[in-house]
Amino acid sequence: MERITATYYIETPFRPEDAAAVLAGEQSSGTFVAVPGETAELKQRFAARVESVEELETVREPAIPGATSSSGLYHRARVRVSWSVENFGYNLPLLVSTLQGNLYEIRQFTGLKLMDLDVPASYAQHFAGPAFGVAGCRALTGVQGRPLIGTIIKPSIGLTPEQTAGLVQTLAEAGIDFVKDDELQMAAANSPFEARVDAVMAVINRHADRTGKKVMYAFNISGEVDEMLRRYEYVVRAGGTCAMVSINSVGLAGTRKICDQGALAIHGHRNGWGMLTRHPLLGIDFRAYQKLWRLAGVDQLHVNGIQNKFWESDDSVVASIEACQTPLLGGYSVLPVVSSGQWGGQAFETYRRTRTTDLLYMAGGGILAHPMGPAAGVQALQQAWQGAVDGRSLAETATLHPEFAAAVEKFGGK
Amino acid sequence: MERITATYYIETPFRPEDAAAVLAGEQSSGTFVAVPGETAELKQRFAARVESVEELETVREPAIPGATSSSGLYHRARVRVSWSVENFGYNLPLLVSTLQGNLYEIRQFTGLKLMDLDVPASYAQHFAGPAFGVAGCRALTGVQGRPLIGTIIKPSIGLTPEQTAGLVQTLAEAGIDFVKDDELQMAAANSPFEARVDAVMAVINRHADRTGKKVMYAFNISGEVDEMLRRYEYVVRAGGTCAMVSINSVGLAGTRKICDQGALAIHGHRNGWGMLTRHPLLGIDFRAYQKLWRLAGVDQLHVNGIQNKFWESDDSVVASIEACQTPLLGGYSVLPVVSSGQWGGQAFETYRRTRTTDLLYMAGGGILAHPMGPAAGVQALQQAWQGAVDGRSLAETATLHPEFAAAVEKFGGK
Repeated sequence: MERITATYYIETPFRPEDAAAVLAGEQSSGTFVAVPGETAELKQRFAARVESVEELETVREPAIPGATSSSGLYHRARVRVSWSVENFGYNLPLLVSTLQGNLYEIRQFTGLKLMDLDVPASYAQHFAGPAFGVAGCRALTGVQGRPLIGTIIKPSIGLTPEQTAGLVQTLAEAGIDFVKDDELQMAAANSPFEARVDAVMAVINRHADRTGKKVMYAFNISGEVDEMLRRYEYVVRAGGTCAMVSINSVGLAGTRKICDQGALAIHGHRNGWGMLTRHPLLGIDFRAYQKLWRLAGVDQLHVNGIQNKFWESDDSVVASIEACQTPLLGGYSVLPVVSSGQWGGQAFETYRRTRTTDLLYMAGGGILAHPMGPAAGVQALQQAWQGAVDGRSLAETATLHPEFAAAVEKFGGK
Repeated sequence: MERITATYYIETPFRPEDAAAVLAGEQSSGTFVAVPGETAELKQRFAARVESVEELETVREPAIPGATSSSGLYHRARVRVSWSVENFGYNLPLLVSTLQGNLYEIRQFTGLKLMDLDVPASYAQHFAGPAFGVAGCRALTGVQGRPLIGTIIKPSIGLTPEQTAGLVQTLAEAGIDFVKDDELQMAAANSPFEARVDAVMAVINRHADRTGKKVMYAFNISGEVDEMLRRYEYVVRAGGTCAMVSINSVGLAGTRKICDQGALAIHGHRNGWGMLTRHPLLGIDFRAYQKLWRLAGVDQLHVNGIQNKFWESDDSVVASIEACQTPLLGGYSVLPVVSSGQWGGQAFETYRRTRTTDLLYMAGGGILAHPMGPAAGVQALQQAWQGAVDGRSLAETATLHPEFAAAVEKFGGK
């Protein structure tokens, strides 16, 4: 029978083997009392199995509160545990409750992080996955051979539909591929959702009619299920190509329901993610996280960016992009969304370390605050990426293109 | 204009006032470039406001990775921030993205936990809240003046529908008020959901016809939205009174959709909660968490129990019960679910510290492994609670009731 495997990074004051056994017991058929008819075969069929325990470093201070060590030592280990697909079938919330449920409460652990998960081949028959992915998002925007260049409407909240549409007009004329609502903006008092869609799509459709290029706009539809479905349909009818969902806030079931509609590319915004991963020994690593959301069907997923303004290291960002690039069950293609403090200068390091242009590369000030104007801002980003792909350095690229040179001068010291 | 207020426990290498200002900027109208038409009035209307900064202890080691302190010191503080309801109206996922979104990524914080939130009176017009709550769950089970006594089907997974129904028969005859699926059990290969509902409800309905007492069974319907709705209807048609949702795994939108149906009491299982709260300076405190789920409409919510087998302290459990007891906007009554290692001995301390019997008190081995049988196990729990309410000690109660005395003898040393 096929099995689902999870890899955890754990810390425990006990023997790692023993702590792993507690985890496997708690998360499957752990029995506290004999039940008539409970056979050894039944236990064997549904019990979680500890596949391996690889001991790592030992420390003197526990990472998070839990049982106290009598020896004063806390042992770290990499543990692999597996479950039969018979336990819960093809149900993402049940998968999460099994791999990420009460085990975080177990006092035998003073640290526990889900690092990775592997689902068997039969999962591909039960999860349609991203309806668009990289190829679909490229087809919708008509962008090939370079990253999609995008931006976020700022200020995050406060603009009227007309002001937002005016900004989209400027950006469309500048040659942008993608624009999105901020995750804080959905239907503020002075920007009703439908009015914003009407105003923005009028600009985008007019621009597409004139130029043949349809800017992808990710309207934030995050909310209750019925409300999201209504707003989704509104975007479809207005000729939009994308909707944004704050995946952690909406949750797995609601997000999947939206992805299953299949008419719009879904921009998966992971705001709240820091809470789930920022501690090295608590929560979930992006490698495991992105698989859940690809199974749910998001087409685009945030990964932060190189030299971002947030807490995340470049190594972590690179690992996240690589995770998204790695086929899941041979597919489930997802477009990594690179953002946070990006202006084009990071294109070189991003490409050097990931060797891909299958990215949605988001810049804010790098476009609208470019000294030669927004069109030069978009051009500068494209020039940076072309230079990176052609193996030129940042300095060489700046000598070739005045737009990028101006960006370096303005943003390069930051 | 009404405002929503959030209280955070933060740690930062910078001045707490400055870090709080970064948070408020990031989570509202933080502008990086002047936009035509952006007026001071508009900023004033939508900007988050730092209401207070209360400095607390200073430490030498950061709680989680972030910016490095040049002085070597990290300052902790309690910070209150507010937003206008105009920013996002009455939308729980947007509320979460605003109060718990990108702010966890801000490098100026080396610790950040959402401790509490307050929503204004107008929220009561937009969220129906729990359809049953304490009074409704009491009415459905016919239990007054004492906690509802409940148990979980164990082994968690592996029993057939017939075995599960057999166990429910035993428990019903023992006088149990409530039984639930384990969160790991939804539709295992040998226990299809519908077959389990059929078998269990046949027992419960027959018992109700004979005795007038209908045992509440929380069938685990956690899954995708449409599947949950189908299974919900199946439980309703079978005469069930309750369904269970793993709220973290399903998410806010999916859970609210289920709660909105209003025909079944919703048992909110918080598995995965340890990940969100176990670090003292990361995530969310139960006081804030339970408000979100009461607004979403869950009728029952897990709180662990006194002297539980997990990591959580008694103080934390007591605070959680008190949070659930505190009316939210004058209502939104929710029944706290006390569980984890409970056998009745903890009733005394639980009552002494919380002074309430409005609880769903769950015991496993305390019932099925009671030396005089399951009926004596249920009686022993009722005796313990009566003793606690009447001001008797554990020892006094044991002298009055042989069933509770046997429980003390078997479980009291643990």
